[in-house]
Amino acid sequence: MAFHFEVLKKDTRSGARLGRISTAHGELSTPVFMPVGTQGSVKALMPETLKEMGAGIILSNTYHLYLRPGHQLIRDLGGLHRFMHWDGPILTDSGGFQVFSLGALRKITPEGVLFQSHIDGSRHFLSPELAVSIQEALGSDIMMCLDDCTSYPATHREAEDSLALTLQWAGRSRAARKHYDQALFGIVQGGMYLDLRKKAVENLTGIGFDGYALGGVSVGEPKASMMEVVAHTAPLLPCDRPRYLMGVGTPGDIVRCVGHGIDMFDCVMPTRSARNGLLFTNHEKVVIKHARYRDDPAPIDSLCDCYTCKNYSRAYLRHLFMANEILAMVLNTIHNVRHYLALMERIREAIREDRYPAFQEHFISTQCDVHNDTLA
Amino acid sequence: MAFHFEVLKKDTRSGARLGRISTAHGELSTPVFMPVGTQGSVKALMPETLKEMGAGIILSNTYHLYLRPGHQLIRDLGGLHRFMHWDGPILTDSGGFQVFSLGALRKITPEGVLFQSHIDGSRHFLSPELAVSIQEALGSDIMMCLDDCTSYPATHREAEDSLALTLQWAGRSRAARKHYDQALFGIVQGGMYLDLRKKAVENLTGIGFDGYALGGVSVGEPKASMMEVVAHTAPLLPCDRPRYLMGVGTPGDIVRCVGHGIDMFDCVMPTRSARNGLLFTNHEKVVIKHARYRDDPAPIDSLCDCYTCKNYSRAYLRHLFMANEILAMVLNTIHNVRHYLALMERIREAIREDRYPAFQEHFISTQCDVHNDTLA
Repeated sequence: MAFHFEVLKKDTRSGARLGRISTAHGELSTPVFMPVGTQGSVKALMPETLKEMGAGIILSNTYHLYLRPGHQLIRDLGGLHRFMHWDGPILTDSGGFQVFSLGALRKITPEGVLFQSHIDGSRHFLSPELAVSIQEALGSDIMMCLDDCTSYPATHREAEDSLALTLQWAGRSRAARKHYDQALFGIVQGGMYLDLRKKAVENLTGIGFDGYALGGVSVGEPKASMMEVVAHTAPLLPCDRPRYLMGVGTPGDIVRCVGHGIDMFDCVMPTRSARNGLLFTNHEKVVIKHARYRDDPAPIDSLCDCYTCKNYSRAYLRHLFMANEILAMVLNTIHNVRHYLALMERIREAIREDRYPAFQEHFISTQCDVHNDTLA
Repeated sequence: MAFHFEVLKKDTRSGARLGRISTAHGELSTPVFMPVGTQGSVKALMPETLKEMGAGIILSNTYHLYLRPGHQLIRDLGGLHRFMHWDGPILTDSGGFQVFSLGALRKITPEGVLFQSHIDGSRHFLSPELAVSIQEALGSDIMMCLDDCTSYPATHREAEDSLALTLQWAGRSRAARKHYDQALFGIVQGGMYLDLRKKAVENLTGIGFDGYALGGVSVGEPKASMMEVVAHTAPLLPCDRPRYLMGVGTPGDIVRCVGHGIDMFDCVMPTRSARNGLLFTNHEKVVIKHARYRDDPAPIDSLCDCYTCKNYSRAYLRHLFMANEILAMVLNTIHNVRHYLALMERIREAIREDRYPAFQEHFISTQCDVHNDTLA
């Protein structure tokens, strides 16, 4: 089945929308959070566990899988779904952001990006065409165009030049595409400049994509700037295509950006925080190594319905973490990912029940700041 | 329910026996292998996963839990079963072997053992009475007496002196016991000296325990010496009590020792090997990082019924291992532990069907040497 997106309901007093994405590997409800499985594994979790927790789609990374084990190997073994034993939808990024993050190890040319592997220093060249080809080999349900992620801060001129490259590459990505059962999303860049973001939207919608992402956020800018870009840009995007905010964010960020009309999110925060012993709740910040949890018989969050909260005390989780037990990472990850997925369920329910603005206001005023300092 | 052991069937041509142990936390069939959960967690596995794999009892370590998080804390939180969310039987060792392994960090006196924590260097004194008291606080189903593990090599005089201490401590352990719903096992020492082993059995059975363990094996002695001790000592033990060979061993060791009448085993080999990427099969040695598995679509063992073998290729497992993914440890551990548990099922079936000697001969001649070099 080809890729399809449908808006089921649009909130009348905010930008929030309830939608459904259909892919060859199943359907999912939006707004959606995609747990990150960088190297073909959502760290510490079995796919069945993810399914039971309510994950509808996961993200995996083109850059990492291209370098190791190699996209041709994965293709020859039947594609990424079979390789990693996940039969639900998968979105793959283009490698653009990872290469951007390599800093001095990469050189951008009009043709593409020269970079050195973070694993062994070997030299590689990633072009828009290759990024599409890799993602077609992986067989992901949603592919992303290679983009030039504009750094922060950037002058208007720098952001404009960077955007020009992104737009040129978007056209080449679209032209390079061979497999039309895999969706292809364009990425809106433009830094913190609203005129450039508008220009990006106009150009990309002119080319035409199955969905549109906002990139170049969460790159060091103040949160207010990110929100301004999202608030300004999301409404410019076509209503009948999914809108994906890349790499965002805290629960509060997600709640706010849903209100601006964003449908899809991904972030390493729940998984990475879990491995560092930082656990999300709606009420307090749980840094599980703290001595105060030493003999605490309560679950991480008594209102949470996850496996970890149903079966284990903070005292046990603290013990596992202090003893450096692998199970600490498994149980903490289950909790944090479920916390995010449960938040998305509450968000969708609020939109469905015509009360998103009230939900958002209550959430922001009571809950989200808990996470913004240590977990950001 | 109090501890109970019943021999259901005795092989007529070997020492092998089929039995059933009943505890307050359920029944289990012997011969049994106990996965090791040193710090209150069988590394990388959730208790439900262990149950699904067929684990009937697990082992946990008094030494580790005494130091961290502390047995009183575990008792106050409802005991080890509730703490770690495992409702099946648990055997706890006495800490004797761990303290023995500390080498220069411990000093043995007639009263007990002075030792320094491997975690923070703090000084502690472990007596036979304290070892029982710790295990009663943990609430394990089977407790072990504190013993003085005789090192290898040892002169006859050294082994005799060491044994004298073990026997004295066994009497003190028996006297210190308060909770009769928890079984207490005595430990037979005596080094490689068969006369001392015999003396140990006579003394311990004179005191009277719910079961008897052979300790001081797998401490560096040649395999032939270990087998001689087991072959000589196991038949001296009372028929109506379970016989536990501590810390053993390879699949071949287990098959041989069942033939000598051993009922219970524990070993870190399947779990530790898994984390190091050494995977057990009946046919070959799988060192998963080897380049030959790079694009191998086959499971670790096509005859294995474990979750890992049913769902993942060697190529994927190699990728996870090379990428240092946590899931590598989870999936490898599931396979190796299931391999051991499935072996025990085959052993019990062979005894039940009156064909243990043929099973043993076939197993030893075709399979077990695969593991003895790299996995030992």
